[in-house]
Amino acid sequence: MSVEDQVTDAARAARQASRTLGSIGAEQRAGALLAMAQAIRDNARRIQNANAEDMAAGEDSGLSAAMLDRLLLTDERIEDIAAALEEIAELPDPVGEVLAEWTIDSGLHIQRVAVPIGVIGIIYESRPNVTADAAGLCVKSGNACVLRGGSEAINSNLALAGVLQEAAEAAGLPPGTVSMIPVTDREAVGAMCRLPEYIDLIVPRGGEGLIRAVTENAQVPVLKHYRGMTQIYVDEHADPELAVKLVHNSKVQRPGVCNAVENLYVHRNAAEVLRAIVADLQEAGVEIRGCPRTMEMVEGIEPATDEDFDTEYLDLVLSVMIVDSLDEALEEIAEHTSGLTEAVITEDEEVAERFLREVDSAAVYHNASTRLTDGGVFGLGAEIGVSTDKIHARGPVGAAQLTIFKYVCRGDGQIRT
Amino acid sequence: MSVEDQVTDAARAARQASRTLGSIGAEQRAGALLAMAQAIRDNARRIQNANAEDMAAGEDSGLSAAMLDRLLLTDERIEDIAAALEEIAELPDPVGEVLAEWTIDSGLHIQRVAVPIGVIGIIYESRPNVTADAAGLCVKSGNACVLRGGSEAINSNLALAGVLQEAAEAAGLPPGTVSMIPVTDREAVGAMCRLPEYIDLIVPRGGEGLIRAVTENAQVPVLKHYRGMTQIYVDEHADPELAVKLVHNSKVQRPGVCNAVENLYVHRNAAEVLRAIVADLQEAGVEIRGCPRTMEMVEGIEPATDEDFDTEYLDLVLSVMIVDSLDEALEEIAEHTSGLTEAVITEDEEVAERFLREVDSAAVYHNASTRLTDGGVFGLGAEIGVSTDKIHARGPVGAAQLTIFKYVCRGDGQIRT
Repeated sequence: MSVEDQVTDAARAARQASRTLGSIGAEQRAGALLAMAQAIRDNARRIQNANAEDMAAGEDSGLSAAMLDRLLLTDERIEDIAAALEEIAELPDPVGEVLAEWTIDSGLHIQRVAVPIGVIGIIYESRPNVTADAAGLCVKSGNACVLRGGSEAINSNLALAGVLQEAAEAAGLPPGTVSMIPVTDREAVGAMCRLPEYIDLIVPRGGEGLIRAVTENAQVPVLKHYRGMTQIYVDEHADPELAVKLVHNSKVQRPGVCNAVENLYVHRNAAEVLRAIVADLQEAGVEIRGCPRTMEMVEGIEPATDEDFDTEYLDLVLSVMIVDSLDEALEEIAEHTSGLTEAVITEDEEVAERFLREVDSAAVYHNASTRLTDGGVFGLGAEIGVSTDKIHARGPVGAAQLTIFKYVCRGDGQIRT
Repeated sequence: MSVEDQVTDAARAARQASRTLGSIGAEQRAGALLAMAQAIRDNARRIQNANAEDMAAGEDSGLSAAMLDRLLLTDERIEDIAAALEEIAELPDPVGEVLAEWTIDSGLHIQRVAVPIGVIGIIYESRPNVTADAAGLCVKSGNACVLRGGSEAINSNLALAGVLQEAAEAAGLPPGTVSMIPVTDREAVGAMCRLPEYIDLIVPRGGEGLIRAVTENAQVPVLKHYRGMTQIYVDEHADPELAVKLVHNSKVQRPGVCNAVENLYVHRNAAEVLRAIVADLQEAGVEIRGCPRTMEMVEGIEPATDEDFDTEYLDLVLSVMIVDSLDEALEEIAEHTSGLTEAVITEDEEVAERFLREVDSAAVYHNASTRLTDGGVFGLGAEIGVSTDKIHARGPVGAAQLTIFKYVCRGDGQIRT
């Protein structure tokens, strides 16, 4: 069977499943999630045997030690996967929520009701636990899913998806609820992108190359996360201690993620704060690259190139620029943002409010760490990704963000005149 | 200058405008809309002169009388365009609305706030009034717009957009708020679709060919309306008089639009109701095409082919199928729907509720006409289109649907631990 046929089969099965999934009640779907969690535990051996095949293949093909470690499914990680499904089961159910309702003059009663999107295609390259997280969030939101994971984890993924689908079916969910594409060719990605009749939304998770390949081919809507060019502006009226603490946390707590700060703008009158921030960061091993004025103000830092201010380091490196005003900071932030997360540090409420209003990002902060942009921290529950798109959903994409709405209209003979 | 350069220039200007538009207050934007309406009236002669060029070119190129009539901007139509802008000005402003807010344990206060999407690209083929409606809805929602109209109306569209942009600027909105692409080559559509750095969302309005051309090329998210395969199910417990009235309105009141019914499913025990519906429709000049069982029940109708049940007639033609049960009706509706509008006619509340829950369409009705799917009727105000997509917004797309949200987070030193 061709790659395209295999993808089409999986997607068609998901579409069929989605027709009934949307009207299965919240309790039954939550029960299925608990059953899926238990099935992961009960089938740990089966999953780990499949994982051992991936590990052996990875060693043969020369995967790095770090990659092999990401791939490995230890007993503890199996338990984490199961526990994550149980957490998703406990979340509030987003399906059927009445988002708004009103009655028009003719007496027609209109409700805007949250409903599942239908079929979600998820394309990922990362750890096998994404298979369970994605399936869990889709079941929680009443969606069927078509999963396409990376080649390194294909055996682990197929085992996980098989266990999850079996448990889902035993709990009364339809066949095709969790469909894993059994092939990992790049061709499978293209094929998914060309199936708007079966797939309603594609969520790609991975490097920029993957995401560009998806969006350039997609006839299916895509919800994507490009980059995290996270930025902070330290105003002239910043509290020095707070500024040091927040920049430190934003850069150092976990530098390899999208909401870690990459560009820092400092008001020219905040030289003392700047020096304190730099001293703290250098002590933490951060390399500072500064604009010419930064280099005049602080000793012992490297010059920043123009390119640095567009570079997502994902590492202990920070670009610093001195600005003359909030206006200039806003201009620079708009120029370099990826639309994910920005923060202002100031005691001046007017500056703060203008920053919060004018910076166009999924999450904007006053006097808090950029690292807080996270579905779990926000209280939205688990997330399937973080959207930097400007439609449907921005920021953390959890179960509620995998729903859309329909208008449910109850009448007694209303017509158009 | 190449077509691509002209498109890029317009889109870049719009992006620049969008940076300030989003933080201009509701009152100023509403004032600008009123000024735009007045400018349309004040510049009627200029617009009509440009329209005369389009009319002359249309006559030379042999446009049909109907097409020429659609193109003509009479005094009355100019006034309608101005009045529509004033209506949009009066709508509630969607920007800045706090959609949800909560405080997390650490004390961080989070608001989900409605914000403009940014830059909306609108591609249309229809009457010149769309130019003003689209610009008006975008200003209302704080978005800049890039407009690409059809070649027949290019002079009218450029004159309208010029007047609108001048009035917007005089009212304090930025240059580039209303950008009309001065070329109508198909190439311009392709170029718009490849500018994700400047355009956040494309709304295509027109035939299936245009919409497919857009979605197949788009690297920019698209909100589209494919077709209106609108369907009604008449249950065995339908009130006969109500059924006749609602099917009549759904088919006859304006057959050429997307929410006019195309497929009718009738329960096998509702033969009498079916006969009454058919008699009424035939009297109104509707051609009935029926499945074999329909033909057994009623005389004087044509046989329906399989293809008929997938045909959007947009005319006084209706396909009728007899079904054995609600289940069968739901199955057929899912098979043929375009996801826009479906209705059930029944006095049985259980049947109605199951239908409303299980039919996956932008708008579902119990005992009301399918013709009610409309932004104006729903009380949402003017609409830029009607979405049959499954993400971002379904159904009528008004000013509120041209917004997205951001998370505004106010803290006092919260960090990630």
